[in-house]
Amino acid sequence: MTDEEKVIERIVQEVLARMGTRTAEVPNDEGPARPRMEPAELAPFIDHTLLKPEATEDQIDVLCDEAAKHRFASVCVNSTWVERCARRLGGTGVKVCTVVGFPLGAMDSRSKAFEARTAVSNGASEVDMVMNIGALKAGDLRAVREDMLAVRRACRVGIVLKVIIEACLLTDAEKVLACQVAKDVGADFVKTSTGFSKSGATVADVALMRRTVGPSVGVKAAGGIRSFDDALAMLDAGANRLGTSQGVTLVSGQTPGGGY
Amino acid sequence: MTDEEKVIERIVQEVLARMGTRTAEVPNDEGPARPRMEPAELAPFIDHTLLKPEATEDQIDVLCDEAAKHRFASVCVNSTWVERCARRLGGTGVKVCTVVGFPLGAMDSRSKAFEARTAVSNGASEVDMVMNIGALKAGDLRAVREDMLAVRRACRVGIVLKVIIEACLLTDAEKVLACQVAKDVGADFVKTSTGFSKSGATVADVALMRRTVGPSVGVKAAGGIRSFDDALAMLDAGANRLGTSQGVTLVSGQTPGGGY
Repeated sequence: MTDEEKVIERIVQEVLARMGTRTAEVPNDEGPARPRMEPAELAPFIDHTLLKPEATEDQIDVLCDEAAKHRFASVCVNSTWVERCARRLGGTGVKVCTVVGFPLGAMDSRSKAFEARTAVSNGASEVDMVMNIGALKAGDLRAVREDMLAVRRACRVGIVLKVIIEACLLTDAEKVLACQVAKDVGADFVKTSTGFSKSGATVADVALMRRTVGPSVGVKAAGGIRSFDDALAMLDAGANRLGTSQGVTLVSGQTPGGGY
Repeated sequence: MTDEEKVIERIVQEVLARMGTRTAEVPNDEGPARPRMEPAELAPFIDHTLLKPEATEDQIDVLCDEAAKHRFASVCVNSTWVERCARRLGGTGVKVCTVVGFPLGAMDSRSKAFEARTAVSNGASEVDMVMNIGALKAGDLRAVREDMLAVRRACRVGIVLKVIIEACLLTDAEKVLACQVAKDVGADFVKTSTGFSKSGATVADVALMRRTVGPSVGVKAAGGIRSFDDALAMLDAGANRLGTSQGVTLVSGQTPGGGY
């Protein structure tokens, strides 16, 4: 271990230790129980998501129309579709969210910034970037930070930046570090997962991320949210945005595979 | 079907029909049998590949050193690593290959071109781009072509451009169309797969792609090539480049999992 690595390790251990007393709790435990939501009330939390590479323009149009009908927060699409979605959703109040450096996060920082800037100029108002996972794994926090900063600077004021940490590839200590750096550079949300790696959001990760960033930064749970109960569990753990391809099923109160 | 789609379908059927007489053959069947290669002779065909998002700089350095030792054609890395690899491989004769719009191919064309241009200026001399799969699925060949052209123009003369068609997501007719467009825009290779989708290279796809592009364009087989016999089968089917993370195993004549 280098001196820098030792310092990082000590800070992480200290932060984790201080958070330890709350590890088994969910953020809402101390307040009065929240009344159970109705399915339709989920809509403003949902980024209606279609990121598979073979998606066609017709499927993207359906995604937009569903989002407008159900008043989801946004549609979340690959950057090739941003302009089309912005045109179709104009005046509906549904935002266009796109992904940058997706899903590996190993694109060079200048290209991530360019992709974000292009998406914003094409009509995106939310940008979900994947952080540089390998740099974090190597303990190169300067590179992790510079990469996030490049995209933060490319998104002008008012554009919502979410940093995807791909929690399934990280240790708990790495998850905490990633969230701290994201908060520090001015990210608006930290996001659990791309949905393209080994696994998606877990309740434990959402709770850890919420405890790390506090109340001033959002937490988006994404990947594997397929039922109304999944969605509620994520919100109870501290998420305030949900990325899912199953939005219509969720707000309809249907069970997955039940006719949608 | 629109008129345009009907015309496309007729052309595809005609091309497939004319190629049909050779469907069951491999390109070398008509010539004398090629002497069986020795494992070490595979080296110049191999793009030594490490694309997982959690790869660290140390692992990238090992990749470069292995490529230099075994005289592989290139290292194939995500664009965040290009500059580091170019520095480390200077003077070795091993090229730096990077990926663009990877692995979904659904990044907007301007950003793909920017990522390619940045990679080349950082020292990449081979660029493996993922085509716009959704546009092909929708029959929007103009968009497919413009997307490839944007990257072709971003790569100056002498830079090798490979177009990844992600064959596992395509019908045979779509594979043929994708290869024809790639050849038409001046791609140097067509490439079967990203290695991040449902499956990797198959002998049948390599043979179909070789028949489609003829002898003047390269065919790179990638994804799932893990043994010496896998590699030989791909070369026999018409591949002249292999993308694999198992290069050291292959040229050592070891079986997968055998001590590497």
